[in-house]
Amino acid sequence: MAKFYFYYAAMNAGKSTNLLQSAHNYEERYMKTIIFTPKLDDRYGVGKVASRIGLDREAEIFEGEDDLYVWTAHEHQREKLSCVLVDEAQFLSPKQVLQLTLIVDKLKIPVLCYGLRTDFRGEPFPGSVYLMAWADELVELKTICKSGKKATFNARLDEDGNRVTEGDQVSIGLNYEAQARDIFELDKVSPIDYKIPEAN
Amino acid sequence: MAKFYFYYAAMNAGKSTNLLQSAHNYEERYMKTIIFTPKLDDRYGVGKVASRIGLDREAEIFEGEDDLYVWTAHEHQREKLSCVLVDEAQFLSPKQVLQLTLIVDKLKIPVLCYGLRTDFRGEPFPGSVYLMAWADELVELKTICKSGKKATFNARLDEDGNRVTEGDQVSIGLNYEAQARDIFELDKVSPIDYKIPEAN
Amino acid sequence: MAKFYFYYAAMNAGKSTNLLQSAHNYEERYMKTIIFTPKLDDRYGVGKVASRIGLDREAEIFEGEDDLYVWTAHEHQREKLSCVLVDEAQFLSPKQVLQLTLIVDKLKIPVLCYGLRTDFRGEPFPGSVYLMAWADELVELKTICKSGKKATFNARLDEDGNRVTEGDQVSIGLNYEAQARDIFELDKVSPIDYKIPEAN
Amino acid sequence: MAKFYFYYAAMNAGKSTNLLQSAHNYEERYMKTIIFTPKLDDRYGVGKVASRIGLDREAEIFEGEDDLYVWTAHEHQREKLSCVLVDEAQFLSPKQVLQLTLIVDKLKIPVLCYGLRTDFRGEPFPGSVYLMAWADELVELKTICKSGKKATFNARLDEDGNRVTEGDQVSIGLNYEAQARDIFELDKVSPIDYKIPEAN
Repeated sequence: MAKFYFYYAAMNAGKSTNLLQSAHNYEERYMKTIIFTPKLDDRYGVGKVASRIGLDREAEIFEGEDDLYVWTAHEHQREKLSCVLVDEAQFLSPKQVLQLTLIVDKLKIPVLCYGLRTDFRGEPFPGSVYLMAWADELVELKTICKSGKKATFNARLDEDGNRVTEGDQVSIGLNYEAQARDIFELDKVSPIDYKIPEAN
Repeated sequence: MAKFYFYYAAMNAGKSTNLLQSAHNYEERYMKTIIFTPKLDDRYGVGKVASRIGLDREAEIFEGEDDLYVWTAHEHQREKLSCVLVDEAQFLSPKQVLQLTLIVDKLKIPVLCYGLRTDFRGEPFPGSVYLMAWADELVELKTICKSGKKATFNARLDEDGNRVTEGDQVSIGLNYEAQARDIFELDKVSPIDYKIPEAN
Repeated sequence: MAKFYFYYAAMNAGKSTNLLQSAHNYEERYMKTIIFTPKLDDRYGVGKVASRIGLDREAEIFEGEDDLYVWTAHEHQREKLSCVLVDEAQFLSPKQVLQLTLIVDKLKIPVLCYGLRTDFRGEPFPGSVYLMAWADELVELKTICKSGKKATFNARLDEDGNRVTEGDQVSIGLNYEAQARDIFELDKVSPIDYKIPEAN
Repeated sequence: MAKFYFYYAAMNAGKSTNLLQSAHNYEERYMKTIIFTPKLDDRYGVGKVASRIGLDREAEIFEGEDDLYVWTAHEHQREKLSCVLVDEAQFLSPKQVLQLTLIVDKLKIPVLCYGLRTDFRGEPFPGSVYLMAWADELVELKTICKSGKKATFNARLDEDGNRVTEGDQVSIGLNYEAQARDIFELDKVSPIDYKIPEAN
């Protein structure tokens, strides 16, 4: 039975490595896959999924208005697809997440999405909100914070390694460091205005 | 090390049973807990966590403006708390979810939240969005759809058992049925406007 | 698609509560279940699954030589079964675990087993070895050690609450305390003879 | 808090890739790791962890009599270790698994083991039995069977691709294919003698 997976993790946990391994596992069994990657991620060249550990391969580039259901259904008609994989899935629009549910439910093709939960201020990405809400299986890929704890947040750093807490949600090319929630100091950077009252 | 858990499930999966069992496990070891339940849930009497399987106990009632960090810190000072449990956690405000992260990170008390991911149209609850984004561990409690698949969505039914797809997000007292995504027909009830194009 | 689940936990984590809740979830949807419990567990009366939190119900008693596949197939023919549940599943024989895999694979009925991983000396139960090896999904039910950590081992205590480290693997009626591995002092009670060399 | 992980999977799921990614994650944060690999696995050259997807690196070779606690403690004294990783962990002896628990509990270093649950006849490896029994976290790495289901068993194939069901438990160099339990036909190859009675 086809299922809808969201593999979530902080930056640099190995999401792309895991995606490439999964695609490889299908293809080794002569099963065809399709890999989608968002246009705005051009760190490694447009249309490429690359992992820092040294693996890469070409991928289909999608933009916000693309209909991933129609695209996949069309490819599936040409040649049977056994798996749909999406890198940097936090950049999907909510509508595209809905299209992915239909790939699973109507076309019966498993969908594996890999992405972040939250941005540099701890805010969830719109795409991630719907991935977390609608996926059949939520699987965490773990990585380590410099504090030794599990890293679950993504701090943005400038060229000198200093923390940046203002700016746009999407800003490809800046540096990020995966951090545990207390190191990240969520209560200080979150747009939600809350400070622990003094008396406590 | 204290952690922040979100136990999520569809309606009637046994969330309250699981909460009551966890509280019991602590108290059997003479560890004190505090249980919060939102005011709007008065199905079983205000201030009570009750499971359909026949268990219930009293709980602290919170409202949208309550500061759960201050409340817990105050109780913790009077008598050491080993665990904070929140029933119907989808009704937390985002600010209250932030307060819960501080209970974990500053007071070092584990927090266990139990709640739904999505409402009767498949939309995530605001509280759930932040629970999914910020919890250390996401754990699914499973239940079954009449179709035999895992149920992950919550259909609202009127008194005659007919599906209701319009109305307010919160409507305690109506009936709900846990359903698999395809039985729920997410694409037909979601506020996100998407239909599969005809030609496909 | 039917699957074979092993819900494992230390003593007193709420395994029976969870089993009873799962059976309830099926029956609420008018789906029939069968519950098996081993003969040697007569703490709460022969043929009963009971949880310390106050729930109980009748169950089918099995012994080591019973063929659970044939038994289930026979019941399934009389009236369609939607789920098979096994309490205290560590007491299954390896052959019975094999029979359970066939209930899933041939009869297409989901099987949910609940049990311990290890005994009072940290040795795995023979049934648990095969449940861990062959189940489709391994799900931990968590409980707490007096040390505040997750409890994963089961210390045997005599009437006065003193630790017992010699005796038979199965000894119903004695007291047990769920403990974290370091509190349990696995290296001191395990039949595997190993002491950290002095020089280190 | 250091924990003991067992990442289990069928053949060719990407265990070594995952291990290499995890080591990379630590080292990128300037944290030192040690990687162990058993002597008998010389497919890629003695002392090397290699993944089929194209990654490899050197590793410490251990044999059955090596004391992994003493070895690690010694290295840790020379230079602080942040993580111990073990490839092909099914080949650990039960005593070595006990030593690994002490690395976690006494030295407070996380241990990540990667290995198989069962052999070509569905029998658990002795090391895997104790990894499954004693690890703090059991995490499945998934791969796909040619049937489209999740593969959880490892069929041995001869040079012509024919199934082999007799032979030694350990036989490096032969080919293996990850299969779902029903495709693997566990009941036909298991040393446990059980056939479904004819009348059923």
